[in-house]
Amino acid sequence: MSQQAVNGVQSRGKVLTLDNMNPNVKQVYYAVRGPIVQRAVQIEKELKEGVKKPFTEVIKANIGDAHAMGQKPVTFLRQVLALCSYPELLEDTKFPEDAKKRARRILEACGGHSIGAYSASQGIECIRQDVARYIEKRDGGISSDPDNIFLSTGASDAIVTMLKLLVCGEGRDRTGVMISIPQYPLYSAALADLGAVQINYYLDEDKCWGLDVTELKRSLNAARQHCNPRVLCIINPGNPTGQVQSRQCIEDVIRFAKEEHLFLMADEVYQDNVYAEGCEFHSFKKVLFEMGPEYSNTVEMASFHSTSKCYMGECGFRGGYMEIINMDPEVKAQLIKLVSVRLCPPVPGQALLDLVVNPPQPDEPSYATFMKERTAVLAALAEKAKITEQIFNTVPGITCNPVQGAMYTFPRITLPQKAIDKAKAEGQAPDMLYCMRLLEEEGICLVPGSGFGQREGTFHFRMTILPPTEKLKIVLQKISAFHLRFTQEFS
Amino acid sequence: MSQQAVNGVQSRGKVLTLDNMNPNVKQVYYAVRGPIVQRAVQIEKELKEGVKKPFTEVIKANIGDAHAMGQKPVTFLRQVLALCSYPELLEDTKFPEDAKKRARRILEACGGHSIGAYSASQGIECIRQDVARYIEKRDGGISSDPDNIFLSTGASDAIVTMLKLLVCGEGRDRTGVMISIPQYPLYSAALADLGAVQINYYLDEDKCWGLDVTELKRSLNAARQHCNPRVLCIINPGNPTGQVQSRQCIEDVIRFAKEEHLFLMADEVYQDNVYAEGCEFHSFKKVLFEMGPEYSNTVEMASFHSTSKCYMGECGFRGGYMEIINMDPEVKAQLIKLVSVRLCPPVPGQALLDLVVNPPQPDEPSYATFMKERTAVLAALAEKAKITEQIFNTVPGITCNPVQGAMYTFPRITLPQKAIDKAKAEGQAPDMLYCMRLLEEEGICLVPGSGFGQREGTFHFRMTILPPTEKLKIVLQKISAFHLRFTQEFS
Repeated sequence: MSQQAVNGVQSRGKVLTLDNMNPNVKQVYYAVRGPIVQRAVQIEKELKEGVKKPFTEVIKANIGDAHAMGQKPVTFLRQVLALCSYPELLEDTKFPEDAKKRARRILEACGGHSIGAYSASQGIECIRQDVARYIEKRDGGISSDPDNIFLSTGASDAIVTMLKLLVCGEGRDRTGVMISIPQYPLYSAALADLGAVQINYYLDEDKCWGLDVTELKRSLNAARQHCNPRVLCIINPGNPTGQVQSRQCIEDVIRFAKEEHLFLMADEVYQDNVYAEGCEFHSFKKVLFEMGPEYSNTVEMASFHSTSKCYMGECGFRGGYMEIINMDPEVKAQLIKLVSVRLCPPVPGQALLDLVVNPPQPDEPSYATFMKERTAVLAALAEKAKITEQIFNTVPGITCNPVQGAMYTFPRITLPQKAIDKAKAEGQAPDMLYCMRLLEEEGICLVPGSGFGQREGTFHFRMTILPPTEKLKIVLQKISAFHLRFTQEFS
Repeated sequence: MSQQAVNGVQSRGKVLTLDNMNPNVKQVYYAVRGPIVQRAVQIEKELKEGVKKPFTEVIKANIGDAHAMGQKPVTFLRQVLALCSYPELLEDTKFPEDAKKRARRILEACGGHSIGAYSASQGIECIRQDVARYIEKRDGGISSDPDNIFLSTGASDAIVTMLKLLVCGEGRDRTGVMISIPQYPLYSAALADLGAVQINYYLDEDKCWGLDVTELKRSLNAARQHCNPRVLCIINPGNPTGQVQSRQCIEDVIRFAKEEHLFLMADEVYQDNVYAEGCEFHSFKKVLFEMGPEYSNTVEMASFHSTSKCYMGECGFRGGYMEIINMDPEVKAQLIKLVSVRLCPPVPGQALLDLVVNPPQPDEPSYATFMKERTAVLAALAEKAKITEQIFNTVPGITCNPVQGAMYTFPRITLPQKAIDKAKAEGQAPDMLYCMRLLEEEGICLVPGSGFGQREGTFHFRMTILPPTEKLKIVLQKISAFHLRFTQEFS
């Protein structure tokens, strides 16, 4: 090669640059792990290096990461996982018989009796059977077919896979996907990645973040001008907003989906996280089937669940499943093919899911401890949900809906005009300015409401209610004090 | 809603159909888990139900799934995983101190000291540091930066993520990606999914599936007529072809990538699986750096590794990593953002990877057993590689290159014209007909060469060499006998 050619090559610069990379990826934004979290990680390093700060630790209330916030793993789950990892322990008398029984059953379903073997791409068959039985029990006996269960790498994986199937068309024919605002930003990120059209419908903050079909209709009609709306995504219990939908609301949504010929995606990963009196979790599937065959035979739906939330909080294992209903068999064959490319979901996560859907029974030795641990986690969350609402609502300029379910609060904050102007002058969202200041001054990491979407001119933040009760109280007091200070400074 | 409207909705049929689903997904094909494997699963069920067959079990030699083929997990790896899963075992005297030390170190790096917490999206920092040190040691001291290491959900995940970053443009400007033929079908599947242009370059079967730069040039020049080639993918040691590239070959490829301004993707998941005398694994990174700063400062590259292959065979844990080299910092920021959307790779897989890159040392108690187990697996594979080549090459109509590395053989089979005609009349690839017949008659599941790509008019199959030696011999003999029978039947 001549020197000229070498120079020629060098002058071309990088093969892959910001200008010539995938443009959809550039549009992706995921606030839950955005710039504020990167700064939080940096501050943690500075603290370790001995840099003096007005606080001694960073409290990451930005993400629903229960174990990181001190929640202890449930003993039974971890015993079975240890047995599956190192089956020599099956001979150990320290482990209860029900844990051993579960481990043996899982191992027998694995290739070579090892969780190190690939599973079927859709997930281990006996675990899919257990999931189906769990759904049947949850939904009062409405039947569930294991062939319609797809195990996944957390719920995120299944949600993205399902959206991918649904996206087609160009320009005005491009698939539009309706998502709530505020939303969980996995949805906006996945839609950007897939080049689908995001259609916003707004939850009503004045009605406890309720969902109203009038708003769905408004949003859909507006979207029909510029895309092909085909999908309606619902998160219930709500993330980041913590509302729990009434049975009536779910019926209305299903009727709307049928009338408007929309594919329903029901993100139900917080199904065990319901705290408010009078609230109850109703699965979309159960309501669909109770509405009669006119609905249960026609409305296409996918419902998602995960091992990361509820009382388990086992985020690191990336376990989850999706149940599909009324899917065209040819499309289902395509779905099976698509998931096979990634070989299989992580098998330890599948094993964990099996324990979640098939927990210790009253006549089994681990039952008492299991129930005690489960109840303690859920009761503590219910208490923390209440404390959070109470404390925030004492602060002038913070208004907070009840945390009916899930594990977040999404309070509204009134920001002084001067703060808004300053943020805008710096090209920053005003609630990002607020949260960044909170992080620098108090070491508390929240996610600005702008990362989830909010009505123009309103500002919020999302905070998990996961810190231990005493710590949560301190966090709430610190935020309250900060809010007053911030308001004063910019008044 | 009026009855008419209801009927209107019903007559519209499904929301999601084969006709209006994502067209890219329809193009996806993944032979390793294709129709032949579905039939194998069906046959297994039939056997269980008591259906009489000429065999009593299905041997799935279609996929590199070591544990499913009877390979035992390595004790040290599983001890540490059990300790991480159920830390109460840290008090148990049955576990060696070095296993406990590793488990404590991993747990300390986890949020709340639990592998149930999310990790950083790029992977746990101390594990990325261990990976970097491992690479440095492997490559004779060439430095590796933990910030350039991305842990992943198996290698597949990282490969797809990297391809996704690289895809842009429309029509003739669409990104083209060069892949070997035969290839590992993850590549063709991912390219179809992303709507990228697949550019085939052929390995030379007559030269032990060697790679020749003349062929790379031919392929590239042809592709430049209709797309924008930007990426060159290499699999070394080769899958499905089992060749191990010489240092000279790797140098030639790197020079070619630089001259032609291509991003290099080096799939090196079989780096410990090298058996043939005179063959040695050379990492692309090491060769790149030995070629001097003109190359090591400019050529953009990603290299992939996995916990699924080598001596571990821990496929179910979905562990892996990618190292990026010379990536534009702005693109890297986009990559970090992109991986954050999926939150994190499975933490048990990350823990496992940590043990692979940081195994027991000579002064530690687990060293002897670990080395014994590791050596036994690799020695058995080396023996099986030899046996496979030897037996196949005794069969008229089967020719088999030496299995220099990886864990597959990809022998060429001569098929009678009548068989070819019959398959074509049935709209089937001739080697699919062959493999289906083999499955039905002998219960042996292979993947037809057409699933990996092959030169027009040639036929192959891929078979893993993973079955235990005695079983492998039987499998080889059965295939040999089948081949003769098949040839006779169609002569």
